[in-house]
Amino acid sequence: MAFDSKITADTLRSIIDAVGILVDEAKIKVTKDGLGLKAVDPAHVAMVDLTIGKGAFDEFKGDEGEFGVDLEKLKDVLKLAGPDDEVHLKLDEKNNRLVVKIGNLTRRMSVVDVSNVTDPKVPKLELPAKITLSVGELDRGIKASEAISDHVALVATPEEFELVAEGDTDSVDLKLEKRMLGALEVKDKVRSLFSLDYFANMVKAAKSSQSLTIHLGSDYPVRLEFDIAKGNGHVTYLLAPRIENE
Amino acid sequence: MAFDSKITADTLRSIIDAVGILVDEAKIKVTKDGLGLKAVDPAHVAMVDLTIGKGAFDEFKGDEGEFGVDLEKLKDVLKLAGPDDEVHLKLDEKNNRLVVKIGNLTRRMSVVDVSNVTDPKVPKLELPAKITLSVGELDRGIKASEAISDHVALVATPEEFELVAEGDTDSVDLKLEKRMLGALEVKDKVRSLFSLDYFANMVKAAKSSQSLTIHLGSDYPVRLEFDIAKGNGHVTYLLAPRIENE
Amino acid sequence: MAFDSKITADTLRSIIDAVGILVDEAKIKVTKDGLGLKAVDPAHVAMVDLTIGKGAFDEFKGDEGEFGVDLEKLKDVLKLAGPDDEVHLKLDEKNNRLVVKIGNLTRRMSVVDVSNVTDPKVPKLELPAKITLSVGELDRGIKASEAISDHVALVATPEEFELVAEGDTDSVDLKLEKRMLGALEVKDKVRSLFSLDYFANMVKAAKSSQSLTIHLGSDYPVRLEFDIAKGNGHVTYLLAPRIENE
Repeated sequence: MAFDSKITADTLRSIIDAVGILVDEAKIKVTKDGLGLKAVDPAHVAMVDLTIGKGAFDEFKGDEGEFGVDLEKLKDVLKLAGPDDEVHLKLDEKNNRLVVKIGNLTRRMSVVDVSNVTDPKVPKLELPAKITLSVGELDRGIKASEAISDHVALVATPEEFELVAEGDTDSVDLKLEKRMLGALEVKDKVRSLFSLDYFANMVKAAKSSQSLTIHLGSDYPVRLEFDIAKGNGHVTYLLAPRIENE
Repeated sequence: MAFDSKITADTLRSIIDAVGILVDEAKIKVTKDGLGLKAVDPAHVAMVDLTIGKGAFDEFKGDEGEFGVDLEKLKDVLKLAGPDDEVHLKLDEKNNRLVVKIGNLTRRMSVVDVSNVTDPKVPKLELPAKITLSVGELDRGIKASEAISDHVALVATPEEFELVAEGDTDSVDLKLEKRMLGALEVKDKVRSLFSLDYFANMVKAAKSSQSLTIHLGSDYPVRLEFDIAKGNGHVTYLLAPRIENE
Repeated sequence: MAFDSKITADTLRSIIDAVGILVDEAKIKVTKDGLGLKAVDPAHVAMVDLTIGKGAFDEFKGDEGEFGVDLEKLKDVLKLAGPDDEVHLKLDEKNNRLVVKIGNLTRRMSVVDVSNVTDPKVPKLELPAKITLSVGELDRGIKASEAISDHVALVATPEEFELVAEGDTDSVDLKLEKRMLGALEVKDKVRSLFSLDYFANMVKAAKSSQSLTIHLGSDYPVRLEFDIAKGNGHVTYLLAPRIENE
C-alpha cells in the first residue's frame, strides 16, 4: 500500500495525543477519504475512535490499507517541529519503515506489526443525556478533584450539569447551569461514576477544541466527543463506569 | 459564628504564603474590622503576626470568632484561580466546613480543630536598629548565600547595611550604603546571625511588596515587617538568632 | 599578578559554558590582549581552545599570568545577574581569592590551584573538508538522534553535508545541500563517527552564535569553530572520532 501525505505539526500532534492517552502503538487505517484510528487501552476500560478527513492534510495520497505506528516515537519527533511546520509522512513498504520528514531532517522508524490486532468494535450505546460544555471549565473541575479523590461522578438534570468528587471530609463540585452550557438535553436525572485518571486524560486531549460533548446515562459508560484539526477530524471516547458503593 | 467574604485570588495567596512558610494549619481570628493570624513554627524558631483589614476584601461579612484552616488545601485550590479571579470564602458552621467558591467551582474542606491551640504571645522587643530596603536586593544576597552556608549574618552600622555569609574558603557579602536604603536608623553597630532557610522564606513571602523593614539588635531576634494586600494588610515576622561561635 | 576587569554577564556566561562542557575547573591565561583558556576533558576525548580579546570587556586590566577558576561556582553566581548586568572580576592575590561583584553583591571564591596543570598542546590537524552551517539546524539533527543512538556520523561530499544516526531499526538523517550551507569546501567524500554526547554539548555551547564551522576528515578528529562575545572571542573544539565497526 502507498501512503504519502503532508500535515502541519500541530494537527498531527492533536491526533497522536488523542490516541496516545490510551495506547503506545496504534493501527492506522487509510482510506481514500482520510485516516481512521481505533484503540482500546490495555485495561479494557476505555476506547477511542478517531477519524481524520483528508481536508486536515496539506497533501493526501493513500491507498486503502493499514499500518502500525509507535505513537511515542512520533511524539518525540514532533517535539523538533514548530507548531506550523509541515510534516511529511511516507510509508516505505519495501523496508517496512515510516519515513517522517521535517524540513531537512528525516526520521525513519520501523512500522509496528499490527497483523494480529483485531479492530475493536465500538458498541452502539443509547445514552439518554447530552451535554455540550467548555473544555476549560471541565478541566478546572478535574484539577480540583485530583486533590481529594481518584474518581468523579458526572450528573445531569434538565437544569444543570455537575461534576462531583467526594473525599472523606472534603468535596469538589463543579456546577454548570443550563445557560452556561452549549447544550443540555436531559429528560430524567442521570449519574455515573468514572475513574478520574482516564477522564482527566480525555479532557486534556480535547484542549485544542473549545468545547466537547458528553453523552451520559446512569451507571453506564460515558461517550465524549469533540472535533480536532479545525473540524476536519472527530474524536469519540468511550469510558466504562465504576461501580458506586455508597 | 458567621464568615462570608469575597477576595481576589492574588490577595488571598499573599496571605496564605506569608503564614504558610511557618505552619501547615492556622487559626484565623475574625473581627468586624478584618482578619488576624498568629502562628509559631513547630521548632519554635519563628513567629508570624498577620493582620488584614476588611478593605482588602471585595466583600466582608464576619462575626467575632475564630476557625482553623488547612493552608496547604487552600493553596491548592488557589492554583485553579487566575490572579484576578474572585474567591468566595464561606463558613458552613453546621457541617464544620469552609466552602471555597471560584467561578462555578465549589470546594468544601473540613475546618481544622484549633480549640486547643493557644495564641502565641508576640514579645515586645526593643530593637535598636531599623533598616528599610528593597526585597529584590535582599533576595539576591540570600540566593548567593545559599551556595556556601546555611546561616547569614545581618549587620547594620550608621553608614550601611550588610548581609554576610561565610563558608570555609568562600564568602558572600551584600552591602547596601545608606543612600540605597529606604531608611537606616542605627546608633551603634549591631550584628546577629540567623538560619538562612527561615530568613530566605520570610523574604520570599515579602516579594509581593516592594520593600521591607528589618528591626535588628546584637545576638537578638530580628523583626521583619512589610505590607501586603495593597497596604490593607501587614505582616510581622520574628526570627530567633543563632549562636555565633567564632 | 593583577587582574581587574568588567564584562557583561551574558558574555561571561558564553565563555564559561564553552569551557564548562568539558571541565569543572579551568586555568585562565591572562595577557595584555585578553584571556585564553585551554582544557582537555577528563576522558581525554575532547579539547577546547578559547580566546577572548580585551574588546569583549567593558574594562580590561591584567598583567601577564594565570590563575585557576571553579567554573561551577562562577556559573552559579551568574544566575543572580541579568543578561546585561556588569560583572566585575578582580583577583585578590594576597588572599588567593577571585572577587566577583554584581551590583551591590560581592562573592569571594578561592582561586583553584593550577600550578600542576600542564597546558594541553593543540595538535595541528590537516582536515580536508570545511563546512559552515546553521547551529539551529545542527541542533535539531542532534536532538532527533538522541532518541536512537549514542553516536552520530558526520559526512560531507562536494554536494552536501549530512548528520546520520543509526539505531537497530530506526535512523535519523539531517541532509543539508550546498545551497543551505554558509560554506562547503570538500574535494572527496569524508566521514567520521563521534560520541553524540560530546558533540551535542559542543553545538549547544555554540548557540549564542548563529553559525559554526566544521573541519572534517575520514575517521579523524573533527574541529568545530565559532565566534563568541560578538566576534571578540573565538572557540575551537577538537573531538576524537569513534571507531566505526560496520
